[in-house]
Amino acid sequence: MGNEPHRIALVGAGRMGQIHGVNAAANRRLDLAWLVEPRPDVAADLAGRLGCGLASWEQALADPALAGVIVASSTDTHLDLTLAALRAGNAVFCEKPLDLDLARLRAHEAELRAPQAQLFVAFNRRFDPHFQALKARLDAGAVGAVESLNIISQDATPPHAGFVKTSGGLFRDMAIHDLDMARWLLGEAPSEVFASASCLIDPAIGEAGDVDTARIVLKTPSGRLAMISNSRRSGYGYDQRIEAFGARGMARVDNVVQSTVSTWSEAGATSDRFEPFFLERYAQAYAREMDHFADVLDGAAPKVGLDEAMAALALAEAAETSRRSGSVVRV
Amino acid sequence: MGNEPHRIALVGAGRMGQIHGVNAAANRRLDLAWLVEPRPDVAADLAGRLGCGLASWEQALADPALAGVIVASSTDTHLDLTLAALRAGNAVFCEKPLDLDLARLRAHEAELRAPQAQLFVAFNRRFDPHFQALKARLDAGAVGAVESLNIISQDATPPHAGFVKTSGGLFRDMAIHDLDMARWLLGEAPSEVFASASCLIDPAIGEAGDVDTARIVLKTPSGRLAMISNSRRSGYGYDQRIEAFGARGMARVDNVVQSTVSTWSEAGATSDRFEPFFLERYAQAYAREMDHFADVLDGAAPKVGLDEAMAALALAEAAETSRRSGSVVRV
Amino acid sequence: MGNEPHRIALVGAGRMGQIHGVNAAANRRLDLAWLVEPRPDVAADLAGRLGCGLASWEQALADPALAGVIVASSTDTHLDLTLAALRAGNAVFCEKPLDLDLARLRAHEAELRAPQAQLFVAFNRRFDPHFQALKARLDAGAVGAVESLNIISQDATPPHAGFVKTSGGLFRDMAIHDLDMARWLLGEAPSEVFASASCLIDPAIGEAGDVDTARIVLKTPSGRLAMISNSRRSGYGYDQRIEAFGARGMARVDNVVQSTVSTWSEAGATSDRFEPFFLERYAQAYAREMDHFADVLDGAAPKVGLDEAMAALALAEAAETSRRSGSVVRV
Amino acid sequence: MGNEPHRIALVGAGRMGQIHGVNAAANRRLDLAWLVEPRPDVAADLAGRLGCGLASWEQALADPALAGVIVASSTDTHLDLTLAALRAGNAVFCEKPLDLDLARLRAHEAELRAPQAQLFVAFNRRFDPHFQALKARLDAGAVGAVESLNIISQDATPPHAGFVKTSGGLFRDMAIHDLDMARWLLGEAPSEVFASASCLIDPAIGEAGDVDTARIVLKTPSGRLAMISNSRRSGYGYDQRIEAFGARGMARVDNVVQSTVSTWSEAGATSDRFEPFFLERYAQAYAREMDHFADVLDGAAPKVGLDEAMAALALAEAAETSRRSGSVVRV
Repeated sequence: MGNEPHRIALVGAGRMGQIHGVNAAANRRLDLAWLVEPRPDVAADLAGRLGCGLASWEQALADPALAGVIVASSTDTHLDLTLAALRAGNAVFCEKPLDLDLARLRAHEAELRAPQAQLFVAFNRRFDPHFQALKARLDAGAVGAVESLNIISQDATPPHAGFVKTSGGLFRDMAIHDLDMARWLLGEAPSEVFASASCLIDPAIGEAGDVDTARIVLKTPSGRLAMISNSRRSGYGYDQRIEAFGARGMARVDNVVQSTVSTWSEAGATSDRFEPFFLERYAQAYAREMDHFADVLDGAAPKVGLDEAMAALALAEAAETSRRSGSVVRV
Repeated sequence: MGNEPHRIALVGAGRMGQIHGVNAAANRRLDLAWLVEPRPDVAADLAGRLGCGLASWEQALADPALAGVIVASSTDTHLDLTLAALRAGNAVFCEKPLDLDLARLRAHEAELRAPQAQLFVAFNRRFDPHFQALKARLDAGAVGAVESLNIISQDATPPHAGFVKTSGGLFRDMAIHDLDMARWLLGEAPSEVFASASCLIDPAIGEAGDVDTARIVLKTPSGRLAMISNSRRSGYGYDQRIEAFGARGMARVDNVVQSTVSTWSEAGATSDRFEPFFLERYAQAYAREMDHFADVLDGAAPKVGLDEAMAALALAEAAETSRRSGSVVRV
Repeated sequence: MGNEPHRIALVGAGRMGQIHGVNAAANRRLDLAWLVEPRPDVAADLAGRLGCGLASWEQALADPALAGVIVASSTDTHLDLTLAALRAGNAVFCEKPLDLDLARLRAHEAELRAPQAQLFVAFNRRFDPHFQALKARLDAGAVGAVESLNIISQDATPPHAGFVKTSGGLFRDMAIHDLDMARWLLGEAPSEVFASASCLIDPAIGEAGDVDTARIVLKTPSGRLAMISNSRRSGYGYDQRIEAFGARGMARVDNVVQSTVSTWSEAGATSDRFEPFFLERYAQAYAREMDHFADVLDGAAPKVGLDEAMAALALAEAAETSRRSGSVVRV
Repeated sequence: MGNEPHRIALVGAGRMGQIHGVNAAANRRLDLAWLVEPRPDVAADLAGRLGCGLASWEQALADPALAGVIVASSTDTHLDLTLAALRAGNAVFCEKPLDLDLARLRAHEAELRAPQAQLFVAFNRRFDPHFQALKARLDAGAVGAVESLNIISQDATPPHAGFVKTSGGLFRDMAIHDLDMARWLLGEAPSEVFASASCLIDPAIGEAGDVDTARIVLKTPSGRLAMISNSRRSGYGYDQRIEAFGARGMARVDNVVQSTVSTWSEAGATSDRFEPFFLERYAQAYAREMDHFADVLDGAAPKVGLDEAMAALALAEAAETSRRSGSVVRV
């Protein structure tokens, strides 16, 4: 420690902006100076809670002491804001996705890859202590080389159909996390993608052109396999589980419950509830992301950046193509 | 195999008689020839199901080919029938308890200990595969020397007050199993007994002079400790758990559920029901007891006999004395 | 009860013949009269243990009192023996598979479907108490309509490559059980099959033209989805789990452990071992199959017959086709 | 919120002083101004980490803006410092125990009970989210009226014999937490105490006049029962479990594991490790205690104070008397 905290700005006061803002304000290695948010009421309320100033995007970037920017605005603004902040010499913490269109990312690839560009794309599960513990076990050889994975990732309740329209669809919005986990844990980039999907939960999701229930199968060049199970509605809370199989057995992450309390009755033994959604389930991961951003501002290389964002998006696009064609898509 | 099955008689067609009868009839090493039961209807029904004949006690004992007797009649007849069968040269399988009065057992001790007396007292938990697996782990040193035990033993629903009156009371009827488990697993006979108990479940039990909720603490000469938790009504099925502690950790037996099915809902994850009572929970143990009786008829020494019956009863009597006096009782 | 036991013959004294023979001999509703087995030593040994006579296939079928035949010989003989026994007026218990070639089954379909043909094809999982409990929960609406399934089915250790050659391959030999479970639990026949598979465990399996690690995705006309995860080697015992998802939550079957004993040490809490393989895991199911055969001999309709055998085999063949083509196969 | 943070001082820079100091410094409702610690090196190091000043006890109390004092020094100084701080008009957060001698507390009872005295005695388990969830379930009637409790409380590794000598002994130092939990959860003050104890783990503990393994039984006037199981060394981490029994079933708190990762091998399924000791297990509770101290400084009544401290100590003294006498002690 002993260093001065890094001066940063936050863009966006929505759900993700609030989470990242609270974590930034509580992090002693960061000095959250500015909130950029066009809605005056929302902006004033959050700035008051965080104890930071309000600024326009131009004002914030003009702050000569500014070292970093957290991009937590609406998805369609992520890439432009990221590019502008990088050009102004700031390190960037960009809430995922960097963009929903792989072609657009490719068009800006050279600039995003520039040596001086410090770009951290915040995939929350990479910072979750449970998944990190799994990764550490696998790296330590707990099951031998990983041969296959089963990933269960199911939301508690379906989103509004309005959200679905701008989300990029189940594969780009939701499965993208699981596709990134598969890449991370398999230790080899998948080269074949298959997806099958349905609209079983909410017809409005189907009318919006999307699906709400899916299974994805990935295969790597050496034959490793991963299965992803997605649903927009579990009926029992947020379901986030992974099983990794190797020659010496299996390592897995189970769901997080709200407490270790259980109740035993004539019906059997009942655990406490599962965490309801990502805000609660990944609260620790979000705080750790912010600490990693402080590392980046100290000069560390981002643990997740353009490569991971593009690779996961490419797999998501392949899954979307596959579920429409009924055939394996090679990436 | 290859030998002729041993010809045996069963006394008693009540709940325990039916269990032991079915297991005896299904055991290829035994030839269940006679059922002795004074109630004609009950006798005819069970004999029909078991495919055996009906006989009076005298007729059964007069069968020159008879090798063994299963005593599963009412508790107050156990000792007399056992003595008579032993005198007639039969091996005896006596449902526990051998008697509820330690003084009576002592009065017949010489006869019961005669070299030719083959007396097997059937404590069901000694034959349960789960408790046997625990014992095997402890004997293999899984936790080091056993230093202490916690035993949970709770019935699902309380007995009728009428049963309570003839049962010998909670300590002699119910805790006696746990006291025997404690002796078996501690590896050293307890020398101090303390008990505290209440009537919290059914006032009729209290009016009958008994208690329905109890805690017992045992201590051995070397300082090993055991705690027993008893209740006549759990509200969640039959609760039969043991934890054994040593220098290297703990080994425990958990309850048996009816299947491995669980249901996950907004309320959490719910296991299947626990087994409701001893008939279901110890079904395997009862079949194994019968197989051990065949071993005894083949000439093996009974694994549980007069020593265990008297020691457990002495501990139960000490617990009863302690709960009335409020002081440790030395045995 | 009260009826005479049904006189039956067993064909085959291999691994499955021994299991079915022991269960038949122990079932009071059946009279196991004959064992048909060409290897004299093996035949004599098993007949001795079962207490039945030895006969040639022709002699057994010529027994005028014979009512049923258990076909547990090598797979390539199943169909011919079944047809012969049915022609002779016997009810047939045929160990799965009825045949590995769907075209052959179709060629004999009319005869196998004849009104008087009593054909029970023994898919063991249909008779497992845990999967039956799951089915009962789902039928009772515990999770609402089933929308999707995840089935984990992994062997403990891989088979010899010699077995692989005659097995019909992973999909026809192993996944066929899971495909049948999917049909049973989804409540709607799958119409689309996709499979991806690799040889990761034993190169000899690949040299024999087979795979040892697979993922299968099924889809029904209404969009229900099922995923099957298969491996020939788990490294932790026999892994047989199913999760069924619906609007109100999830119901699942977990693995069976050898006892409820766990050991707690510095490394964490360790359960007892999982059952090692199908003989142990499905011991109860095999006994229940035999009891169902007694039901069939009493006149009941077989719960699993030609329809289930053909449908599961068609799905397995489609999976094999799909893993070679990389495309969905419609059935 | 919106108020100025409360200015406070911390006394003690040992293990507990560090925990409370970090939580106080991170709490936005508190302004940690002073650290009081006689050892210059230790003091400078912690004050540097906490960003607070150094002061003597007299200097700190002389600060006219001081509103509260955290007493986290050695146990034998707790009561004198608490009294001095209260006299100076400060609210007090006193790490447990307030004192090890009930007679001394009684001698100062009037002063400690003065209407203006704001005394919070920090029993950590009262603020643990898992035990709070248990209490909430019980209060909501999840099991009906609580009839009995089983409390398991075992340390991972035994303390140094040097610590034992100043600790007050197992009952005053360790069991006191469990005795407080029993009082809290039973809903009725225990009136009878029995204890049995041994020295099985470290002879040096016995030479210091203490025990390392104990069982305590409590009984309330209405007959409710509680059992406490204590050990100074579990061999598997910090074991903190409670089961509460009532007419409709049981509610329990299980141990906290370091992550939801498990590993499945030939040996069975192994959970992640249990938390090693109270610092990790009760990290959330300590932060919540500090937040409660902010509530007290805002004017709230302390949730735990003199009554709880004296009652738990009285039970601990009774347990010590009972384990020496072998009889129930009435309190």
